[in-house]
Amino acid sequence: MNLRVVLVAPRNPLNIGAAARAMSNFGVFELRLVNPYAVAFREAKSAVKSQHVLKHAREFATLAEAVADCSLVVGTTSKGHRELQHPLRRLELGGRLIKRKLAASQPVALLFGSEKFGLSNDDMSHCHWLMRIPTREEHESMNLGQSVAVCLYEVIRSPISAQKSPANHRQATGEILERFGELLGEVLHESGYVHARTEGSTGLKLRRLIRRLNLNAHDAEVWLGMLRQIKWKLRADV
Amino acid sequence: MNLRVVLVAPRNPLNIGAAARAMSNFGVFELRLVNPYAVAFREAKSAVKSQHVLKHAREFATLAEAVADCSLVVGTTSKGHRELQHPLRRLELGGRLIKRKLAASQPVALLFGSEKFGLSNDDMSHCHWLMRIPTREEHESMNLGQSVAVCLYEVIRSPISAQKSPANHRQATGEILERFGELLGEVLHESGYVHARTEGSTGLKLRRLIRRLNLNAHDAEVWLGMLRQIKWKLRADV
Repeated sequence: MNLRVVLVAPRNPLNIGAAARAMSNFGVFELRLVNPYAVAFREAKSAVKSQHVLKHAREFATLAEAVADCSLVVGTTSKGHRELQHPLRRLELGGRLIKRKLAASQPVALLFGSEKFGLSNDDMSHCHWLMRIPTREEHESMNLGQSVAVCLYEVIRSPISAQKSPANHRQATGEILERFGELLGEVLHESGYVHARTEGSTGLKLRRLIRRLNLNAHDAEVWLGMLRQIKWKLRADV
Repeated sequence: MNLRVVLVAPRNPLNIGAAARAMSNFGVFELRLVNPYAVAFREAKSAVKSQHVLKHAREFATLAEAVADCSLVVGTTSKGHRELQHPLRRLELGGRLIKRKLAASQPVALLFGSEKFGLSNDDMSHCHWLMRIPTREEHESMNLGQSVAVCLYEVIRSPISAQKSPANHRQATGEILERFGELLGEVLHESGYVHARTEGSTGLKLRRLIRRLNLNAHDAEVWLGMLRQIKWKLRADV
């Protein structure tokens, strides 16, 4: 299955181990860790019951690198009522959308934030949309290992018939979307749309704006080509 | 909800705590323990994060007493292929049957065996039928807290209310998309991406490219603002 579970900054070796175990139970083998607490990762790996999944887990310094090859990036959150900048779907619906992508052989990343803080706004800006497990309002926050188990169960349970999307709908990967964001940022900077002092917050906004375009791989290349030309022209004129 | 979670001879305080937490997450409050390892139960209860569910958990000496008031008793097992004396249902179907009982206000007990041995034949003899989470054959056995979480999720999840799509998706009007196309055409012309002799066919391509972005009204305005600024800058530099 083309599904990657991405744990962002996990702190507790038991949770890392539990996530890996649930993955193995449900036949999901690609575990990626972004900037994990080093001691926790080491302890989890050396645990007696450490499995195949954990032994082959890959470590990344940034989330951008961890999702670079994924064409759909979904963040999980327990906050149903916080001001979110992203579309938020319940797991029942989100799981179905993920299944559809997987059935079309497109790589999907499912993100889980740290035990204490969840995903940051910066983490979320890499996501196409967010998903929440329908826990009750008075006690929203689930244990990390348990939420991984519940999400994966929803994705693997009674598979829907593969609804193949048309061939030219291969989604743009995270890597290409990052390049899009960088180029657009440069063009906006050159043109005076973005000022140095607002550049920080603009980065996140652009990233979200671009994810919402839901670009396929071919169109993304077209837009990149346009931006390159515009950038060249803006610089040539200086 | 008339659902009781019954842990039979649990050994690990972390698992008891995890089961209680998942119950609280999903709004299931009646936890019953049959012959728990005394130290584990005490430790779980005294843990800092021990919740309402755990504080009100009831202890029974025998399984018969623990399920005495239940009209449906369902055992969980990870063994898909063992000689079982009971009907065995996958969670997707079993969950639906449990929901139906609960909707008819009938009390249901959901049984989980000890971490090491699962439910014994004697335990199973109290069950109407058995249920298994669809884990893969090579790694069937789930962590106790995780399997409680997954089973409860299946019982509470509602395919109906999950259909809602996120708000904030008022689509951009055709008028705005046309302006987007005109502006983009001008910018591409200024920057030399489009040449006069290919301009005709490019217009159609841009129009399709822009429709595929599937923009909402707010985002479309943001993109228009960017293009206006870029156009202004390109002209100012000439």
